Amino acid sequence: MTIPSTMRAFVLHGHGGFDQLTFHSDWPVPIPTNNQVLVNVKACGLNNTDINTRTGWYSKTVTTATTGGEYDGDQDADGGWDGGVNFPRIQGGDAVGIIVGTGDNVDGGLVGKRVIVDTITRDWDNPMDFNQTSYVGSALDGGFADYMVIDWRNACPIDCELSDAELATFAISYSTAENMLNRAQVEAHDTVLIPGASGGVGSALVQLANRRGAKTIAMASEAKHAEVARMNPTAILPRQPGDLTQSLQKAIGQSTVSVVADIVGGEQFPMLIEALERGGRYACSGAIAGPIVNLDLRTLYLHDLTFYGCTIFEPHVFSALVKYIEAGEIKPMLAASYPLESLPEAQQAFIDKKHVGNIVVTME
Amino acid sequence: MTIPSTMRAFVLHGHGGFDQLTFHSDWPVPIPTNNQVLVNVKACGLNNTDINTRTGWYSKTVTTATTGGEYDGDQDADGGWDGGVNFPRIQGGDAVGIIVGTGDNVDGGLVGKRVIVDTITRDWDNPMDFNQTSYVGSALDGGFADYMVIDWRNACPIDCELSDAELATFAISYSTAENMLNRAQVEAHDTVLIPGASGGVGSALVQLANRRGAKTIAMASEAKHAEVARMNPTAILPRQPGDLTQSLQKAIGQSTVSVVADIVGGEQFPMLIEALERGGRYACSGAIAGPIVNLDLRTLYLHDLTFYGCTIFEPHVFSALVKYIEAGEIKPMLAASYPLESLPEAQQAFIDKKHVGNIVVTME
Repeated sequence: MTIPSTMRAFVLHGHGGFDQLTFHSDWPVPIPTNNQVLVNVKACGLNNTDINTRTGWYSKTVTTATTGGEYDGDQDADGGWDGGVNFPRIQGGDAVGIIVGTGDNVDGGLVGKRVIVDTITRDWDNPMDFNQTSYVGSALDGGFADYMVIDWRNACPIDCELSDAELATFAISYSTAENMLNRAQVEAHDTVLIPGASGGVGSALVQLANRRGAKTIAMASEAKHAEVARMNPTAILPRQPGDLTQSLQKAIGQSTVSVVADIVGGEQFPMLIEALERGGRYACSGAIAGPIVNLDLRTLYLHDLTFYGCTIFEPHVFSALVKYIEAGEIKPMLAASYPLESLPEAQQAFIDKKHVGNIVVTME
Repeated sequence: MTIPSTMRAFVLHGHGGFDQLTFHSDWPVPIPTNNQVLVNVKACGLNNTDINTRTGWYSKTVTTATTGGEYDGDQDADGGWDGGVNFPRIQGGDAVGIIVGTGDNVDGGLVGKRVIVDTITRDWDNPMDFNQTSYVGSALDGGFADYMVIDWRNACPIDCELSDAELATFAISYSTAENMLNRAQVEAHDTVLIPGASGGVGSALVQLANRRGAKTIAMASEAKHAEVARMNPTAILPRQPGDLTQSLQKAIGQSTVSVVADIVGGEQFPMLIEALERGGRYACSGAIAGPIVNLDLRTLYLHDLTFYGCTIFEPHVFSALVKYIEAGEIKPMLAASYPLESLPEAQQAFIDKKHVGNIVVTME
């Protein structure tokens, strides 16, 4: 196959609204360097992190919920998932595609492999050195384009029957969710409460906690309950139950849970924490309803709770995920697919949160 | 020795101010039942929990700092450390004394042993069942009296040269502190920031983290720095450093720490959390500056932090503590000693927080 010199790409030119996102049909195709492969991207999933990076939410100059609204922070502040982000930047961390080229020190036999990209780049000699990790689509260019380059160890060969769009629903959401369950040591005897269960990470949490044999209680807006039920949670509760204790008692016969796996935060955070049994665990990997929450330290210490913040995961999390997909143990929740050129419309649908599962763009 | 039928005791008659604490010279001496020993109390240390239980702070109807002020909650609310507390109640969880009698199923050879009391009572067949734990001086009578009964497994023989008053400084503070360090897995390579380092738990944290070879940064009001220096922390900072990052950089050549071991909470909580390196740990066992804090979930999850709430500890924590005392690896920080009859004055001094270490009452 001949590699062209230019490609289609959706490029972010600065922090801000959708006006900062520009489609280009003649963006230069990147060239793989040492340890890198060139991936012909086939599909790329959407994530909150794309929007948070654009709006500058990570810089903490924005304290509101993830809304996709206008940027109200400092253009010079660190705005990336892991601190800084330089522009122009191609976002998109959930890429799947075919390896079509290799740089130095890479086995040429990888060309032609179908791959799913692990979003976290690392010092592979010391993969849990937090100072050496970065994110595809934030610190380096991602998959909202026809081609991308990536360390070959982040391009994981996968063998399955799923379509490109289906496969692009997994990487960030499911590795994030599996890491949350690992950090919280979720096992079959656990009862896991999952606010925001209709979203990408939420639906991943339901499926991956089910996979471990745990009881799962999915919280989602009532309009989505039928879709959420497809993931077979033990019980489904409204997105904002008036009395969570009572709702739990009615739904599962106990008023507390052993684990809360949360990406929502916001005003209901105290209620979630109060629902934990003594010795319970709270795992957090997002705060789409607002990051600044009230914590009663008495609940934390008198109930011997543990809170796990979850972003960077160990490399084995991603290889386990690939195995679950290949074995059919988890199912894609593909809500909608848009062509690359319609990324802003796809993101608006993502922000509107009327979907269950994930939304992707494809490069057909 | 003959056991009298009545004894001196300071008795709490309800939630409230000091007026709820009454001295009695003819309170009935308790009789040891199954698995219990009778302890002739020689000294008993003071703790925040005595005051918190009296004022109803644990009931969460009181949201302010631990002040020892008037009770403003609901007299019927659960007001104990572990939920309910019935009156009349003899408080005091830090008892030391001599075993002078035994109930059924207890080895009579224990009579005459000098003991230090482990404050947490348990189902000893399942010692980490949180639903079976209680606290001496809260759910059952404690050591502000000439005699107390306790499960024989909570009365730990100890062989050392320390005075009764010195020995009564250890139990709650040091087992709490050791549990915090265990939960946060503190090792020699760690740097541990200790707010409130002049108090009972704070000074225990400095000594016990030093014992593990960790770097310790003690935060205390400047009037107490000379006393705090006796515990050999790596560095001492003011109680409220204006810029913690800068203060750390100046004091130890790095702007972050790997562990915060906190019993203070309050308004400076966000500053403490921001001082943690990525992957850092926050251990909490109190909130004397106020329990309701602002948490930015982004800091928790994007920095992969872990928060450990610490109250109930595994039984081996207490037996390890006894060994450290017997080996002279930790030193008592006895700030002042009062006769039992002066418990309110002792508690007022404790509340005024002008001391370093702990304050005890003795039964001479």
